[in-house]
Amino acid sequence: MTAIFFSSFSDRTKKACGIFILLLLTFFNTFAQNNILVFQSDFGLKDGAVSAMKGVAMGVSPDLKLFDVTHEIPAYNIWEASYRLVQTAPYWPAGTVFVSVCDPGVGTDRKSVVLLTKSGHYFVTPDNGTLTLIAEQLGIQEVREIDEAKNRRKNSNESYTFHGRDVYAFTGARLASKTITYEQVGPKLPDQVVMIPYQKPSFEQGKVKGTIPILDIQYGNVWTDIDKKLFNQLGIKIGDVIKVQVFNGTDKVYEGTVKYVNTFGEVKEGADVGYFNSLLNFSLGVNMASFSEKYKVMSGNTWRVVLSK
Amino acid sequence: MTAIFFSSFSDRTKKACGIFILLLLTFFNTFAQNNILVFQSDFGLKDGAVSAMKGVAMGVSPDLKLFDVTHEIPAYNIWEASYRLVQTAPYWPAGTVFVSVCDPGVGTDRKSVVLLTKSGHYFVTPDNGTLTLIAEQLGIQEVREIDEAKNRRKNSNESYTFHGRDVYAFTGARLASKTITYEQVGPKLPDQVVMIPYQKPSFEQGKVKGTIPILDIQYGNVWTDIDKKLFNQLGIKIGDVIKVQVFNGTDKVYEGTVKYVNTFGEVKEGADVGYFNSLLNFSLGVNMASFSEKYKVMSGNTWRVVLSK
Amino acid sequence: MTAIFFSSFSDRTKKACGIFILLLLTFFNTFAQNNILVFQSDFGLKDGAVSAMKGVAMGVSPDLKLFDVTHEIPAYNIWEASYRLVQTAPYWPAGTVFVSVCDPGVGTDRKSVVLLTKSGHYFVTPDNGTLTLIAEQLGIQEVREIDEAKNRRKNSNESYTFHGRDVYAFTGARLASKTITYEQVGPKLPDQVVMIPYQKPSFEQGKVKGTIPILDIQYGNVWTDIDKKLFNQLGIKIGDVIKVQVFNGTDKVYEGTVKYVNTFGEVKEGADVGYFNSLLNFSLGVNMASFSEKYKVMSGNTWRVVLSK
Repeated sequence: MTAIFFSSFSDRTKKACGIFILLLLTFFNTFAQNNILVFQSDFGLKDGAVSAMKGVAMGVSPDLKLFDVTHEIPAYNIWEASYRLVQTAPYWPAGTVFVSVCDPGVGTDRKSVVLLTKSGHYFVTPDNGTLTLIAEQLGIQEVREIDEAKNRRKNSNESYTFHGRDVYAFTGARLASKTITYEQVGPKLPDQVVMIPYQKPSFEQGKVKGTIPILDIQYGNVWTDIDKKLFNQLGIKIGDVIKVQVFNGTDKVYEGTVKYVNTFGEVKEGADVGYFNSLLNFSLGVNMASFSEKYKVMSGNTWRVVLSK
Repeated sequence: MTAIFFSSFSDRTKKACGIFILLLLTFFNTFAQNNILVFQSDFGLKDGAVSAMKGVAMGVSPDLKLFDVTHEIPAYNIWEASYRLVQTAPYWPAGTVFVSVCDPGVGTDRKSVVLLTKSGHYFVTPDNGTLTLIAEQLGIQEVREIDEAKNRRKNSNESYTFHGRDVYAFTGARLASKTITYEQVGPKLPDQVVMIPYQKPSFEQGKVKGTIPILDIQYGNVWTDIDKKLFNQLGIKIGDVIKVQVFNGTDKVYEGTVKYVNTFGEVKEGADVGYFNSLLNFSLGVNMASFSEKYKVMSGNTWRVVLSK
Repeated sequence: MTAIFFSSFSDRTKKACGIFILLLLTFFNTFAQNNILVFQSDFGLKDGAVSAMKGVAMGVSPDLKLFDVTHEIPAYNIWEASYRLVQTAPYWPAGTVFVSVCDPGVGTDRKSVVLLTKSGHYFVTPDNGTLTLIAEQLGIQEVREIDEAKNRRKNSNESYTFHGRDVYAFTGARLASKTITYEQVGPKLPDQVVMIPYQKPSFEQGKVKGTIPILDIQYGNVWTDIDKKLFNQLGIKIGDVIKVQVFNGTDKVYEGTVKYVNTFGEVKEGADVGYFNSLLNFSLGVNMASFSEKYKVMSGNTWRVVLSK
């Protein structure tokens, strides 16, 4: 059929069409769901909540492959939920569907949405700020509101408090398994999501300023939001010493110098270092120990870092 | 063959047969194992015990899909094991096989069984009370004792203490992958399992009484075993105030009033509420905080709740 | 082709060839990767590091089946990483690929290797002692160094600190999915790995001496490295009493007697026992309580046990 259809065109038209179709296929391939469904929540793993969500997904399609970001987001900590998504999503193939449930406003009028990013990842979540960093770093392709009249587990209307199971896991599973198309999620919304305000990093008067969005909790390293390009304006090279100040609000919590290294192995045990972490953000650490514990440095919007030569 | 066989009957007989076969297929479909194997234990995730169980399962059949309820059941807490199963199993498709290993009596003469429920779920476990709530809420279709002469990992007789790996994971994997039929698990037992005794909720003299089987640990909410039907006998409506007393044994631990809401978002931060949780049981919570911590309320058989208008 | 080739040989030669080919197939079957990839790390599950590794693996091949040993190895504890691998690997089918990332020397010149054991399991890891117990107990078939020019995630050279994601998960996924052969991992190394030195258990002058490599943390049992063959030289039988001394360095931490049992159920609650654990090593426990807590016994190279009649 395609061949017959094509034979009525000139060679030039055919070639243009071919390229167009190729582009179209590439486009759809990039955005096509791939049966991979990745969960994140603040539920913890001590009760059965995560398992109930996965059971619902398996009920939708046994062909789904289920994974997790983490379920240890501190209760109601939307900022950290946002951070964990952006830390991991880019490493998953395009087409992967993420379900994130950190939902202090469950049952209120916050919208339930599915964001499709320019990178081709899907995010099923309450639109409460969880998408802040994803929207900024992966870009908004399209946002749709979940139509709960169609995309809600049968007979689940009695329960008002577990949308993770009844709406998000259910919708995510239907989307990831192509039981529904992205359009069938529900009506299109404007290309925007609820954003948590935060101070952007900057270079001023020979100093680089940033915040500490999160700790590398397992090791006690302190991660900033200062990227390499900004840092390089200081003109500091590997092996040099960096002057560091850390503030919580207006309190100075730490002032000192650290060696700028590629890896911890370049200094002896117990030495303080500055380095770029696995997300290529400037970080503070102690070889074989915890910078956070040693200097009582924590994370959050009120925590700021100032770096200079 | 079927066609030839059928042609010798009248149309009416054929129709009746057809319906019968359809019912039969539906029945078998409901109870047919589906390659999904879900693990629960009190092993924790810090050592390799859970991984060893999953390795054994993958050795039985690489087509199995392995999941978890939780492995953070407090050590030896059979009651909580029972609760977590009933909290999650109904959300998994019929045919799913659960392996639960909370087994303080490992190596003693407690029976190893596989329960098939009326809902079509299978539970592989020591029969030590773990099945209490599952048997009550999903119903007993059949119980079989595991024949360890046939259903035990090869060369595992030297080890007396890890039946989770050598008997339960192995048998569960063989059952879920249809390597064995349910009948091949072992001999049929009477339709009963070991039950943990507990006080059933009731309505007396204008008051509803219940117990606190479990806490919603991640958020500190207090879950009771009082369902909506029982609660509704109080004649309390959304927005009304509920009088609540909590006892541990004979000690009154809490007395106060809470607002009856659908969701936490209906009250301001820090306000106490009564609501129905995701399992549709009456629960006590504080918006954005922990009821359990605030009022030192815990869970277990000795913890009772009394509600009135 | 095979048939034509074979017809030129005598029957006897054919038979011999047949057996040889069968052996060859068996051999290759034992060592063939099976799409199963099992992760271990000291990352914990609170951030997104493990998820990023799994995302990379899914990007390599969506047909992979991903599992975990544990991610709760204490930070930088290579000895425990080694122990957890040997506790679990033998229960996974031959052909399984393990990725272990406990890597205090990330970015230094420790080698990145893939060990193939005589049992047909693959281990992708920094060669920093992690392979000590695996090499001893499963045997070294071959060791290859990862050629990072070929086996490293694209565009990941900027990050020096997350080889788990950029090198080990990536290489493990390519190997497990047969995207590369074992030979394509990189150049062959001598048949040896970095070994952590430790005291081997022994029988001297009527006493069995061993170390406490690890605690059974969930229950507080104390696991030694004394196997049944060594223990049996004491001539102690089930039901007998064992004299036990525990030392930390030269300090005697515990001295007492325990009953030798098959299972905890043989004694009353709170009684001390000696038994063989699920890895068939001699262990100390308390029925329904923690030996480690009761007597302040911990684990590590400096902790020694002496048993006598």
